[in-house]
Amino acid sequence: MDVLFQNATVLTLCDDRPVLKGGYVGIAGGKIAFVGIAAPQEPAARTIDCRGKFLLPGLVNAHAHTAMCLMRGYADDYTLQDWLYQKIFPVEARLDERAILAGARLGFAEMLRTGTTSASDMYFREPAVAALALECGMRVSLSNAVLAFNEAAYDPETDRAIQETRALIRDFHGAGNGRIRADAAIHAEYTSYPAVWRYVTELALTHGLCLQVHVSETRKEHETCIARRGVTPTRALYDAGVFQAKVLAAHGVWLTDEDMDIFAETGASVAHCPVSNLKLGSGIARTAEMKRRGVNVALGTDGCCSNNTHDLFEEVKLAALLQKGVSGDPTSVNAYEALKMATVGGAKAQGRENEIGRVAEGFDADLILIDADSPLLRPVYDPVSTAVYSATGRDVCLTMVQGRILYENGQFTTIDVEQAMHEVEAYAVPIVLGAQS
Amino acid sequence: MDVLFQNATVLTLCDDRPVLKGGYVGIAGGKIAFVGIAAPQEPAARTIDCRGKFLLPGLVNAHAHTAMCLMRGYADDYTLQDWLYQKIFPVEARLDERAILAGARLGFAEMLRTGTTSASDMYFREPAVAALALECGMRVSLSNAVLAFNEAAYDPETDRAIQETRALIRDFHGAGNGRIRADAAIHAEYTSYPAVWRYVTELALTHGLCLQVHVSETRKEHETCIARRGVTPTRALYDAGVFQAKVLAAHGVWLTDEDMDIFAETGASVAHCPVSNLKLGSGIARTAEMKRRGVNVALGTDGCCSNNTHDLFEEVKLAALLQKGVSGDPTSVNAYEALKMATVGGAKAQGRENEIGRVAEGFDADLILIDADSPLLRPVYDPVSTAVYSATGRDVCLTMVQGRILYENGQFTTIDVEQAMHEVEAYAVPIVLGAQS
Repeated sequence: MDVLFQNATVLTLCDDRPVLKGGYVGIAGGKIAFVGIAAPQEPAARTIDCRGKFLLPGLVNAHAHTAMCLMRGYADDYTLQDWLYQKIFPVEARLDERAILAGARLGFAEMLRTGTTSASDMYFREPAVAALALECGMRVSLSNAVLAFNEAAYDPETDRAIQETRALIRDFHGAGNGRIRADAAIHAEYTSYPAVWRYVTELALTHGLCLQVHVSETRKEHETCIARRGVTPTRALYDAGVFQAKVLAAHGVWLTDEDMDIFAETGASVAHCPVSNLKLGSGIARTAEMKRRGVNVALGTDGCCSNNTHDLFEEVKLAALLQKGVSGDPTSVNAYEALKMATVGGAKAQGRENEIGRVAEGFDADLILIDADSPLLRPVYDPVSTAVYSATGRDVCLTMVQGRILYENGQFTTIDVEQAMHEVEAYAVPIVLGAQS
Repeated sequence: MDVLFQNATVLTLCDDRPVLKGGYVGIAGGKIAFVGIAAPQEPAARTIDCRGKFLLPGLVNAHAHTAMCLMRGYADDYTLQDWLYQKIFPVEARLDERAILAGARLGFAEMLRTGTTSASDMYFREPAVAALALECGMRVSLSNAVLAFNEAAYDPETDRAIQETRALIRDFHGAGNGRIRADAAIHAEYTSYPAVWRYVTELALTHGLCLQVHVSETRKEHETCIARRGVTPTRALYDAGVFQAKVLAAHGVWLTDEDMDIFAETGASVAHCPVSNLKLGSGIARTAEMKRRGVNVALGTDGCCSNNTHDLFEEVKLAALLQKGVSGDPTSVNAYEALKMATVGGAKAQGRENEIGRVAEGFDADLILIDADSPLLRPVYDPVSTAVYSATGRDVCLTMVQGRILYENGQFTTIDVEQAMHEVEAYAVPIVLGAQS
């Protein structure tokens, strides 16, 4: 065995035994080889004593624009329209591959530091980001979302997105023992048209990819679609056949009950992004109703420019709090259900439900340790409650992907974090500020 | 000069110059003696270099039941009724002074660790807690809320609360150069009656105390009062003369516009507790409307049993996010306004607006440092945005009250934190669990 975690409080996320106290978890060949409450017979190359620590599956960020952390705090407190058209789009038009890689590297460092081991990403220059993720050890599902505003004219940007997606599939899909996945992606209903949707869906079906898409993030988007097409964005995409692919839809704030039923019937997932939805004034997704209707709900941070952090623990806590606060029912989404969104739910949304999201034998060893030996977390009555309501990503002291330790006690093993911060500030920030009107 | 902070990014919270880059802040005799962008002439006994760090006023927690952190995570995901009557009240009936002191010590450690320097507390055994706060160096405004359910009969508990308040005033009000204050307190409209309100108000007026009270936390409380008395809780208290004292009302989730006008006219404050209000399903206070109507809004964590943390940075971020999300207007409460609630607003709520809440010459030196040299906080476009949307209490690396450093880089100078955690777990937790039905 390569690594043995011993004396851990294990949050397995397996419903039949969600918490193991004094647990042993052994890792071999990048996989979880042993889970139990007695020491395994086989010796381990390294033993990690976990007294006072919680071992749990790495969190899954099901909707991120990772590289945008180079714009963290650049555009707060604007209306969505001003935010996008005055601040974000002008900057993005100037970002080159080096700037995007700088942002992605810092974003991956932040995710690993705060316990996220797998991210569904939607941005540009994804083949380069795939190579970076391979090198950093991060698990990613990457997509380059097709934007196509004008059905009548050839758009070189649309073409470039498709070419990049094809390169991503060819060169990286399945790389790193399945750690890197290419996803197909439609940016959104309002930024493209049915011929594009069908093209992207075909790509997903041909290569067995998940399909990322923004759906009903804002009331305006949702209602404009109804006015234009006579149906909701979900229904419009469904009618074009998009839900034949495995859909991972970000936001879903304004989904109708009928929309939710389409998600449930087709096995599609919603990436709930509570912080971003609040910060941009989009609203609060009805995730309790989604769960009642059988929709798989995952959690995402969205871009760091509308959050402004990749710490998914914030989303977990807020996913529970918001449903309680809005419904008036404190039992609405409990701590364990919220934590499942960020683990089991996220894994399912990524098409990785047999690969990650649980501490179970045979699963990939994507694991994190929370140091609960802290005046901010003690006493511990219920470790799930502590992890959800009291812990933050700052309490993570070890992050492992496929059995490889990528972060431990302040040290990153695959990322030069000082260099990553310097590259963002010395190279990318001037580009951002240069684009300022 | 005792201490000189140099090369700091200073978030002064003074509207005429909210941010000083490369700032110098000098401390002498427990007060801020110098604020500027050039080094002062006078030498300092200790110089602290603050490159990559933000210096800001210590945060003010305007509504806490500090000792309840001994029940952190003990009672999640219950309806308010079950939470109070099945879980909290039975435990509280069994807590002795030693248990309460253990909880308060751990709570103060947590607050100091996460950048809170002043707390308005409402709980039991407050004279003992006052002695503890004096020893720990924490700034507190303590109250023992009078509960009086039966107007017709003598209640020894009511009597004890009043006796404790009198002892608190006599022995501790103004102690520690004004660091310890006694507040008067009415638990709530629904847990007492007008004769008690008038008695407590008289106590406040006689001794110049603030008056803490829970107001309109839940819809049920609010509507039951209207049904019983024909007026809202705010109006009922107002009619009894309570607002003649300086009122600090916790929650205010269901305040009407007319209630808000009473607050504005009388200079009363609301302690907004967004996490607790969501977690217990109480709702979302209309703080943007309160601001529009001129009400002073402060922030509180409430007890750790309905939060489950004393990290006020969470409340700051959520205070901004929730108003945006609910109103659909991302400009509703901006980062600076949210940070003001936790500093200037909190200071005013405690009657300390000329004492703390700003980095200004002559104010008490209640200051904190945020270490922004972190992949979780960089790049920094706007330090206020970073402090509000990206930082958490875990990023605080130094906490000072009245010029005395109480926490620095993992070390507490006045609290044996290992002993504090042990005392809670060895002494208080068994009492909590023994009361479980």
